[in-house]
Amino acid sequence: MELQKVLHMNGDGDYSYANNSSLQTNAILKTKSSIQESIAEIYCNNFPECFKFADLGCSSGPNTYLPTWEVIEALHSTCHSQNHKPPMLQVFLNDLPGNDFNSIFKLLPSFYETLKKEKGDEFGEYCFITAVPKSFYGRLFPSNSLHFIFSSFSVQWLSQVPKGLVNEYGVQLNKGNIYIAKTSPPGVHKAYLDQFESDFTLFLRLRAEELKPRGRMVLTLMGGNKYLNDMQELLAMAINDMVLEGLIEESKLDSYNLPIYPPYDEQEVRSIIEREGSFNIHQLETFHPAPAEGFDKDNKGLDTRGEIVASNIRAISDSLLASHFGESKIDDMFHRFSIKVAHYLETRSVESTCILITLIKK
Amino acid sequence: MELQKVLHMNGDGDYSYANNSSLQTNAILKTKSSIQESIAEIYCNNFPECFKFADLGCSSGPNTYLPTWEVIEALHSTCHSQNHKPPMLQVFLNDLPGNDFNSIFKLLPSFYETLKKEKGDEFGEYCFITAVPKSFYGRLFPSNSLHFIFSSFSVQWLSQVPKGLVNEYGVQLNKGNIYIAKTSPPGVHKAYLDQFESDFTLFLRLRAEELKPRGRMVLTLMGGNKYLNDMQELLAMAINDMVLEGLIEESKLDSYNLPIYPPYDEQEVRSIIEREGSFNIHQLETFHPAPAEGFDKDNKGLDTRGEIVASNIRAISDSLLASHFGESKIDDMFHRFSIKVAHYLETRSVESTCILITLIKK
Repeated sequence: MELQKVLHMNGDGDYSYANNSSLQTNAILKTKSSIQESIAEIYCNNFPECFKFADLGCSSGPNTYLPTWEVIEALHSTCHSQNHKPPMLQVFLNDLPGNDFNSIFKLLPSFYETLKKEKGDEFGEYCFITAVPKSFYGRLFPSNSLHFIFSSFSVQWLSQVPKGLVNEYGVQLNKGNIYIAKTSPPGVHKAYLDQFESDFTLFLRLRAEELKPRGRMVLTLMGGNKYLNDMQELLAMAINDMVLEGLIEESKLDSYNLPIYPPYDEQEVRSIIEREGSFNIHQLETFHPAPAEGFDKDNKGLDTRGEIVASNIRAISDSLLASHFGESKIDDMFHRFSIKVAHYLETRSVESTCILITLIKK
Repeated sequence: MELQKVLHMNGDGDYSYANNSSLQTNAILKTKSSIQESIAEIYCNNFPECFKFADLGCSSGPNTYLPTWEVIEALHSTCHSQNHKPPMLQVFLNDLPGNDFNSIFKLLPSFYETLKKEKGDEFGEYCFITAVPKSFYGRLFPSNSLHFIFSSFSVQWLSQVPKGLVNEYGVQLNKGNIYIAKTSPPGVHKAYLDQFESDFTLFLRLRAEELKPRGRMVLTLMGGNKYLNDMQELLAMAINDMVLEGLIEESKLDSYNLPIYPPYDEQEVRSIIEREGSFNIHQLETFHPAPAEGFDKDNKGLDTRGEIVASNIRAISDSLLASHFGESKIDDMFHRFSIKVAHYLETRSVESTCILITLIKK
């Protein structure tokens, strides 16, 4: 799958995911109580000697160890309240093979040191952090081997650009756009939804095989909102401008589509989970995390805010855009985009939508 | 532990471990029959649903997947001969956090593709390769969780520069040398041996905790030989020349010692294993792998052979030397060294020694 080789969050510098992921951090913090409840339930039903936890789509940056830390806190406080010695903990950090795991690993010695300092030498010695570089649209773990799975802002990524975006005659349906846009023909939304249904169903089936009975999964997904559509329309306009100036071929624009589908509402998610059938839905709610930096109406000028938002979008789609349009086009593209974003922010305020799901394996 | 942050095999380019590890490749191939026998024994005693295997000190290069491939071959042929469906396989590739895991992971998609092509889709889908970035002088895995451990050319690396090389008054014992040399005082060899005994004992105790009962471990270690001592003496001479020319401070040379101890003979290894007590020795033998490139008297001129050998040595100690003496000194150092090696090769032929051990957990 070509997409997997290309898709990874930016690892370094101004446009890095690490420096442009405040929204994600806010959302992970929001899931704290879901994680705590899940860990307590699993621990008290099993008293495992070794608790096995996977973070799918862990990315690379300061967020990477945050879910692991939440799990440690929850496990530690659950055991403490029961006067139990905490179990060993095996953590599996998963992302695509192109993710910058080296920079995660560089932080690991200081993570272990902090852990020993805060939770005691023994807990630090028996926490085993491992990496699993593979797409989560394939099996990642032995059957029946995990207690808990967490995934934040990853499952809205599709396994590929929706198949239905090219018709039987090889014609691109979504010409001039790069995502579901106001000018997209009706087949485009259906192609995206079909791909999401098929991918999310596969995801659930695979995870059900890997989880132990009554194992739990806490997921956050980007929810469908005007923000993403508007931003992608502005980016498409920037690319269109470059097509008109002869800097980018029109066919390049016509054949690019962002492989992401944030479900429109809870019902869309619920019906897929119920149809797949491996999980009971324990929690399914929509929330609005604190706005990403640049969206809050702070003291910064519009141009600066436009640049910040553009960097945010660039952090998640840089590798895809660069591989499709060529590395050399990207600075120009995002400069044009940031100007359009600044205009946009003059008149609009934006709210992000997230979907939080806790599932229990039947 | 500072050493762990610094020590890693070179990842890229002319001096990379990948391009300078023919000796290691030869030795891994030599262990093939030990791996095959171990896998067959373990499989037939347990019929595990998921076979769990760790490669400790996997490094980063074309060798990295070789032991995993040998294990797969062995598992596949064992199951085939019994008309069994092969079990799932979980592989843990271990090295220090500074190892270049990214470049290993880049090869993973094509490794999985090859696996599916050669061993069938199902085996490919149920082979789970993970990475464990941590020193093997600490616990790496949950208790009682592994069937088989392999480690090639790693266990001779010490956890630190031998403590005994600095006396109670803070005086360096091994002045002017960087390893056990003809001009080293007698305390130096003892300091190295003591550190090795302590490290290898710890290594055995930790692995015994992680292995399942009757689990097996196949290790190859560099054996003590004149080659390593001679090479390190030549490198010390090159550094000494730079001290005399004022390019390196004398105190820098005096305080550098290579943290490696290749056991002198089988008896040294046997007595540590027996004293530690967790394992039965199934196999303990010395062999001489085909010489590393540059040592074989081929058609290449002496200067070229000197450079090749210098690159071999550089691949394993570059990061340590650069961090101690400064990156800017290393090219000059190894240029001087390669000239000395070329002289050396005029009159000597060199044989490498390896120790091969198969252990069974009691």
